[in-house]
Amino acid sequence: MPSQTINFAVRSFLSSSEGTVPHRPIITLTTDFGLNDHFVGAMKGVILDIVPEAAIVDISHAVQPFDVLDGALAISQAYSYFPTGTIHVVVVDPGVGTPRRPILASSDGYHFVAPDNGVLSMIYAREERIHVRHVTAEHYFRQPISNTFHARDIFGPVAGYLGKYVDSHKFGDEIEDYVKFAAPRPKAAGENRIRAVVLKVDRFGNLITNVTPADIPALFAEKPPEFKIVVGSREITDIRSSYAEGGPGEVFGILGSMGYLEIVSNRAAAAQITGAAKGSEVSIQLGGGAAAGKGA
Amino acid sequence: MPSQTINFAVRSFLSSSEGTVPHRPIITLTTDFGLNDHFVGAMKGVILDIVPEAAIVDISHAVQPFDVLDGALAISQAYSYFPTGTIHVVVVDPGVGTPRRPILASSDGYHFVAPDNGVLSMIYAREERIHVRHVTAEHYFRQPISNTFHARDIFGPVAGYLGKYVDSHKFGDEIEDYVKFAAPRPKAAGENRIRAVVLKVDRFGNLITNVTPADIPALFAEKPPEFKIVVGSREITDIRSSYAEGGPGEVFGILGSMGYLEIVSNRAAAAQITGAAKGSEVSIQLGGGAAAGKGA
Amino acid sequence: MPSQTINFAVRSFLSSSEGTVPHRPIITLTTDFGLNDHFVGAMKGVILDIVPEAAIVDISHAVQPFDVLDGALAISQAYSYFPTGTIHVVVVDPGVGTPRRPILASSDGYHFVAPDNGVLSMIYAREERIHVRHVTAEHYFRQPISNTFHARDIFGPVAGYLGKYVDSHKFGDEIEDYVKFAAPRPKAAGENRIRAVVLKVDRFGNLITNVTPADIPALFAEKPPEFKIVVGSREITDIRSSYAEGGPGEVFGILGSMGYLEIVSNRAAAAQITGAAKGSEVSIQLGGGAAAGKGA
Repeated sequence: MPSQTINFAVRSFLSSSEGTVPHRPIITLTTDFGLNDHFVGAMKGVILDIVPEAAIVDISHAVQPFDVLDGALAISQAYSYFPTGTIHVVVVDPGVGTPRRPILASSDGYHFVAPDNGVLSMIYAREERIHVRHVTAEHYFRQPISNTFHARDIFGPVAGYLGKYVDSHKFGDEIEDYVKFAAPRPKAAGENRIRAVVLKVDRFGNLITNVTPADIPALFAEKPPEFKIVVGSREITDIRSSYAEGGPGEVFGILGSMGYLEIVSNRAAAAQITGAAKGSEVSIQLGGGAAAGKGA
Repeated sequence: MPSQTINFAVRSFLSSSEGTVPHRPIITLTTDFGLNDHFVGAMKGVILDIVPEAAIVDISHAVQPFDVLDGALAISQAYSYFPTGTIHVVVVDPGVGTPRRPILASSDGYHFVAPDNGVLSMIYAREERIHVRHVTAEHYFRQPISNTFHARDIFGPVAGYLGKYVDSHKFGDEIEDYVKFAAPRPKAAGENRIRAVVLKVDRFGNLITNVTPADIPALFAEKPPEFKIVVGSREITDIRSSYAEGGPGEVFGILGSMGYLEIVSNRAAAAQITGAAKGSEVSIQLGGGAAAGKGA
Repeated sequence: MPSQTINFAVRSFLSSSEGTVPHRPIITLTTDFGLNDHFVGAMKGVILDIVPEAAIVDISHAVQPFDVLDGALAISQAYSYFPTGTIHVVVVDPGVGTPRRPILASSDGYHFVAPDNGVLSMIYAREERIHVRHVTAEHYFRQPISNTFHARDIFGPVAGYLGKYVDSHKFGDEIEDYVKFAAPRPKAAGENRIRAVVLKVDRFGNLITNVTPADIPALFAEKPPEFKIVVGSREITDIRSSYAEGGPGEVFGILGSMGYLEIVSNRAAAAQITGAAKGSEVSIQLGGGAAAGKGA
């Protein structure tokens, strides 16, 4: 039926903005594979072999090796900017080859294909309605399945078939006991004192903390109370609104684009200046205690 | 009007070589964001959400952080190879969140979306007719606009709407006082002596200088005069025509593919051998002085 | 003839799975260019200028500079996962600018565009029927041809025209004397002793050796004989089936997804633990000698 074939081709090319028809499938990749090996290339080959019209987009392949929390953070910061219908593949998978389950999590807007090790925890926390399935439909896998490269043999192929509009319920049954961890949150540590942590250091040496405006609203108020933030070797007493608002060597706070308090410096790496790194403690003292702390 | 919809879709897919109709939009990215964070992924998501059929191509995300000249060099070396109509986004933006203007520069062949900080200086120097606009049409921006990530909130969206064939004059008024800096040029430094600089070191350790054939035609003549080039710890007295024309450890000059004099070594890093780096001085002595200099 | 134009556009968009018509051309890139310079961007621009509808996919740009064997390994590990008809460009080219030939190798499933320096050796070994042509049709090259960047001026354009369905025989005559090297194979070194080598270290610090099941079937048997593998500072006496099957600090063997014996550790870098690197010797002692060796 050639006419039907053509209709499908034209339909799948139409952009979403043209109407209600779907555009070509968009598949994103977030992994800890790095870019020095053939891993990412092989995975893309497998996907394109199933759905050659797909647009494959790299989010990052520089997740810290084996670091599920770092992967959770990366995908949580990028997924929501993509068009509705985007398929996100997230592979940080130290348990590859063990019985940990491959899963497909589908929200109103997106599909997520990943190992069931908590790497989607921040997605579960942000997406209101989400259905998680244990992917068991082996006829969608690449055969033979290796014990060491499920991105190529399972996650990639599942994303490919999703890109061909295979219904999500065909991949396996829904489960409720999927692995979910709580992201590290700031904790009270004495009167008006809060202990937080550096979640990651970005390309520019900015220290991304786990503090959000919801955690300490006063800190981000128009007229914040006196406060003191200790990170590494430095004390920070200012929150400003752009990176450029600091003199040479000054370290200050900013509400960054990720939604977290960042400790930064103008055209310089706060990580280097403060000596702080991923995992470093961030101690926040609010109000009079801040001044007292200063004097101590 | 479904038939019109289909016509548009087919039209936008036609390759430029098939006639006069435009092909799918091509949007390139040149930034200092690196590939370790979610920045590039978020920016691509925003663009694809506006124009899902776009082909997004990375030129480089490894511009030296905050280094506007390095960004200017990167885009100037790649943009002209792309098809007519390509939209180039260039984000090296230490002033993000300050009143520095977002601009759209349009030449006969290309659009450039960037902050107005000089990062397009080498484009202004090379493109004969160029119209620069201050982008003020906020309805094309992503809301809310952060103070720290205009690639996601302004530059990406503007590129997306350009990709949907929004006319450039709709983004803002033309300006004449855009920021432009002169790229560093070789300077006379005494009789037959020229002082130049290493613009960058490439992946292979080749030292890219700022010397072009127009600066010192004699150097690139079929029979050049005696000359001596001092870079780091080494004296170079030969210009050759390919990397492979040198023995082990030999350092020599070449007219590189970027159009500049490069100081290179065969299958080895001239940067390492000479100890020179980005910003190192390159001293060129032409004619008799070269021999005299040698003896000194 | 507009109707023909439209037919072509629709035809070239149809996915291979829809029937026998070709999908949009897929062109992969494997180089030693790194991602810090404009090289890859310029090459992509040249390709898209010829064939704007192409999907360009990076396999890796992190091949060790000038290392033809490393490039051969990278392409051999990824090419076969791509759809039939994919065009693979492989540029590791220390001889650029010398008379080494540009070649086009075509097998039943793929095209390979590369310099004739052996970088396709593992392809020749794996693909049964392959025709290799010396690419001499200069009208497909970009003019002027530089002496230093044939990826931009020759290999990229040839891939672009292949993507436009130019017949392979139009690029030049078939040759038989193309450069081919034998990949390093394990060697007998005394009774039941085999000497192998570390081919590469991957992102996770796994040591990829050149030992395949065909070389030493016993090693990968369900019940292998006693054996001892010495790599760097460590002796390995276990082959397991997944990375996760080891305790902290344990080093063991695995049959990896590349088809080679890998020396690995669970959530840790075997390269760091053993002190071994690319090129390190791997000594394998099978049977009684292993125990004896242990006692010595």
